[in-house]
Parts: sequence; C-alpha cells; structure tokens
Amino acid sequence: MIVALPTEELREAVGPVEGVEYVVWDGTGLPPRADEVEVLVPDYRSTIRAMQRLPELPALRVVQTQLAGYDGQLELLPQGVRLANASGVHDDATAEHAVGLTLAVLRGIPEAVRSHGHWTNLWGRRSLADSRVLVLGYGSIGHAVAERLVPMRARITAVASSPREDPLAGEVHGVDELADLLGEQDVVIVLLPLSDRTRGFVGETVLSALPDGAVVVNVARGGVLDTDAVLRHAGRLRFALDVTDPEPLPDEHPLWSAPDVLVTPHVAGGTSAMLPRMAGLLRDQLERLVAGRPLRNVVS
Amino acid sequence: MIVALPTEELREAVGPVEGVEYVVWDGTGLPPRADEVEVLVPDYRSTIRAMQRLPELPALRVVQTQLAGYDGQLELLPQGVRLANASGVHDDATAEHAVGLTLAVLRGIPEAVRSHGHWTNLWGRRSLADSRVLVLGYGSIGHAVAERLVPMRARITAVASSPREDPLAGEVHGVDELADLLGEQDVVIVLLPLSDRTRGFVGETVLSALPDGAVVVNVARGGVLDTDAVLRHAGRLRFALDVTDPEPLPDEHPLWSAPDVLVTPHVAGGTSAMLPRMAGLLRDQLERLVAGRPLRNVVS
Repeated sequence: MIVALPTEELREAVGPVEGVEYVVWDGTGLPPRADEVEVLVPDYRSTIRAMQRLPELPALRVVQTQLAGYDGQLELLPQGVRLANASGVHDDATAEHAVGLTLAVLRGIPEAVRSHGHWTNLWGRRSLADSRVLVLGYGSIGHAVAERLVPMRARITAVASSPREDPLAGEVHGVDELADLLGEQDVVIVLLPLSDRTRGFVGETVLSALPDGAVVVNVARGGVLDTDAVLRHAGRLRFALDVTDPEPLPDEHPLWSAPDVLVTPHVAGGTSAMLPRMAGLLRDQLERLVAGRPLRNVVS
Repeated sequence: MIVALPTEELREAVGPVEGVEYVVWDGTGLPPRADEVEVLVPDYRSTIRAMQRLPELPALRVVQTQLAGYDGQLELLPQGVRLANASGVHDDATAEHAVGLTLAVLRGIPEAVRSHGHWTNLWGRRSLADSRVLVLGYGSIGHAVAERLVPMRARITAVASSPREDPLAGEVHGVDELADLLGEQDVVIVLLPLSDRTRGFVGETVLSALPDGAVVVNVARGGVLDTDAVLRHAGRLRFALDVTDPEPLPDEHPLWSAPDVLVTPHVAGGTSAMLPRMAGLLRDQLERLVAGRPLRNVVS
C-alpha cells in the first residue's frame, strides 16, 4: 500500500508499518508514484490545494487530513474516496491556546507588552478563577478546554447542538438555550466547526447579548464570527482571535486597529504537540487499513 | 474586639462576626480607636508602611496580612504580637498568572501583540503540552500551579527545600538535586519565598544550567532572581517576570529593553479572586479569635 506523506519528519515519526510503503509529497506537482498512491496525507497548511489534485490519483482510497475541521473539503472528494480528519490531534494545543488567550486578555498581558518600558497599574483585574466561561461547541476540543478550566476554578457553561450530561461540565446546554445564557458570561470560547449553519453565527445577536467587558475567544474558524459585528462591538467587548475572516488578515484590515482586539496568526493547533499526536493517529490508521479494520475519524 | 480593616469593601465582604467591631483604616495617620485595636489587617499594597505604625497600637494582638510572603515583616513585629499571612488566598490568581505567562511566552503572544497590523508566521512553536516544567518551590501556590499544568499535559518536576512524595507531582525533589534537573527543562516557574537564603538564588549558576530557549517565569518576589544574571542570559533564555528587583522597575531600567523579557507589573495576586478568598480567611480567623481557638497561617 503506497502512502503519500507531506514531510520526511512525519514519515520518521510514524515509522515503518508492515505492508506500507511511503512516498513524500510536498504538494507541488504530483506525488511520486501518483498512479499507485492509495492513502494521501496532505500538508497541514495546504490541505485544500493538495485536495484539488485528488482526481489525478487514480488508486486513491483514503485522504487522512491533519486538520480537525473539514470545511471546504467534502466538495473536493472524488466518489469512492474516504475522508478522515485529525480529530483529537489538536485538542491539547488548541485548548491550551484558548486558555492562554483568555488569560492574556483577562490579566492584561497585551497591555503589559504595549506599555513595556513603564511600570503601569494593572492591578485588580478579573481573574479566570470564579469567572463564568461559556464553551460554545462541546466536542473533543471543548472537553479539553473544560479539563483545563475546571482546575482554574472557572465556572463553566457548555453549549452544544443538543443537550446532554457531561461529567466535567455537568449539564451541556442545547444551542437553543444560548440566548438565555449569554447575559451572565465573562468569557465565551468559540469552538464551533464552520458549516453553512454556523457561518456568522457569532454575530450581532450573540454579541449584543453579552455584558460589557466580556471576552470572546475564537480558536475555531474565522467565518464562525461575523467580522462586521466584531468591529461594531470591539471596545465594549474584548476579542482574542486566532482565526479571522478574511484569513490571513490583510495589513490594512480594520480588525488590526480595533480596540480590545488581539489577533494571533492561526497558531492554536500548529505546535510541537502536533507531530507526535499526528504520527500516533496515522500509524493506527495505517495498521487498521492493512488489517482491514474500520478507520477512525471518518468524516465521509 | 476591635478589628481594623483597610477598606469598606473588605468589611462588607467579611460581614458581621459576633463579638467583633470593625474600624476602617486606610493606612494614613492612625486607625480610629487606635488604643483599642486588637487585630490589624493592613492594606495589600502598603503592608510594610502600615506595619511601621504597629508600636503605636498598644492593644494590638494580631496582624493578619493579605500577602502570602512575609519578607521584611518580622522585624517590624512588636513583642507579643502574632503575625498571620494570607497563605492560600492568592493561590488561584497567582497560579493562573504563572500559567498565563508561560503560555504567552511559549505560544508567542508578545510577538503577536508587537506585530499587530501584520499577519506574521508564528507557526510551529513549542506547546505547553509535552513540555518539561520545573516548579521551583512547592508550597500551596506550587501545588496550585501543578493542578493546572497536569491537565495541560505538561511534564512536571517539583522541587522543594526537602524531598517528599506528592500525589500530583509524584516525587518532589530536594533543592540539592536541582543542578541535575535544570538541563532538561523547557520552563522553570519560580515560587520561592524571599529570604536571606533565597535572595539571588536564581542567578548565574541556575540560569547557566538551563538549555537555550528555556522560559523562566517569576511570580514570587523579584529578589529571588539575580537581575544582572537575568540581563546576561536574556535572549539565550526567555523570561516572564511579574516581580522585579528593583520594583517597581524604573522607566530606564535595562530589563525593559532586554531581549525576550516580558514584565507584568506585579499583578499575579491582585485580582477579583482576592476579595472573596481574603474575606473567607478573615472571617474564619476572627471567629477563631473570638472563640479562643488557634489561628491559621501563623508565621510568628
């Protein structure tokens, strides 16, 4: 079974799997032995571009991405090819960045950086401890965020598409209850996947319902927030955005200079934590394929 | 029993305690009913100044500070007056700021703030997940830091004055093992109390032993770090300092412009989390005094 991987680094981390032969393809041109490639792992940061070449891989059976989201991918998938995502791989890195952005905004780290050179008074700010944090989207990353917020003594409200019980968050509220919950939140961490239903979901209605000074953290996809609504509420609310719409954010975009908006350049998932977790998933997937067992994380 | 508190806010948060009468003293002049004050709670940010007036309070029996550290206080304590500190009160806020500073430096938040206006490449940085974090000083704040680091998947090494077992950190190493442990750390979080033994303890020897790129976070007291040694290693190592020596840091001090040094203006403990925790401790202490039961947190 010929498996195309994007880097030597990933090939080494996965290691040999019986019955598997690797080729390395960085996404330019066509992969070596393109006619034989049965499994393709696109590069993390050029997944869509690599997937545009899928019709040129006649033996392809499986695309294993390195992304948790799969917006824009299904329409590029040829008939009969399965798509598996990297659900779980980015949980630790993404959850920690969500918590890091929340702490940075609450505790005044951007202000400290901007006023470096002068000992300013940042005393008496809100602590994450005792703060009410709404986790909007409660899949595996949401759960990982909650795992980190609980020992920080935050008071968590989890919201998902449908209500359920959860050992960590207690009650998970259905999204239809969201309007009643927003008014009492100090922080909202947005983790919704991007789809036709969620595009712009965090817009005027949601943002208007939040109290002054509330912090909105987006580590999901830029399109889940309505950028125009963010610009209207910046200053009244505070934003920490690892993802933006548009993305990358052009140099002259008004989000850069909006008050109380902190942007990080889509770094939540792409850390040192990724390679070992991705290699572990991939190795498991390849062993499953070789043994004829069902794949994990199948999206389509 | 007459109890002098620094703010109306604290008086309200503590609420009435049978047998206790409050006076509010902001630290200027002498407290109302100075001759009768038996318990004094100094203002958080002018503890030393308030303690310099203790000889003028003839009925004084107990000083209950709002600080976890008690450097510089014992020498101001009149004979026969007990000193209790606020151990535990600042654990949540201080631990979360230590974690927030660590995440900020690892994940590039200062760089993102400084390059705001341009979408930079901060991809592929070290995650706190999998990172090796040495907690130097393992009292109640150290334990609170570990509680937060464990679900972040950090690999913790705890160091205290003497070795012991700990359910969270596993083995707590004695400080005599420190030299052997430093070479393999990604992060060191400094939580040592300031004393004659610890002044300048994190100096040339400790810093030289850390690998390139390691992050040193200080949320203890500025004097625990040797500022000259910090300046020599800044750039090779990265520093996040909530406390400095001198403090406050003068505008022209070289620490402000040293490479890879982030300073926050001593904000770890002074947050919204302080008042309810301080009020809870104080209420308990006053009930103990009225009932003739032993005080908590007695330092001297």
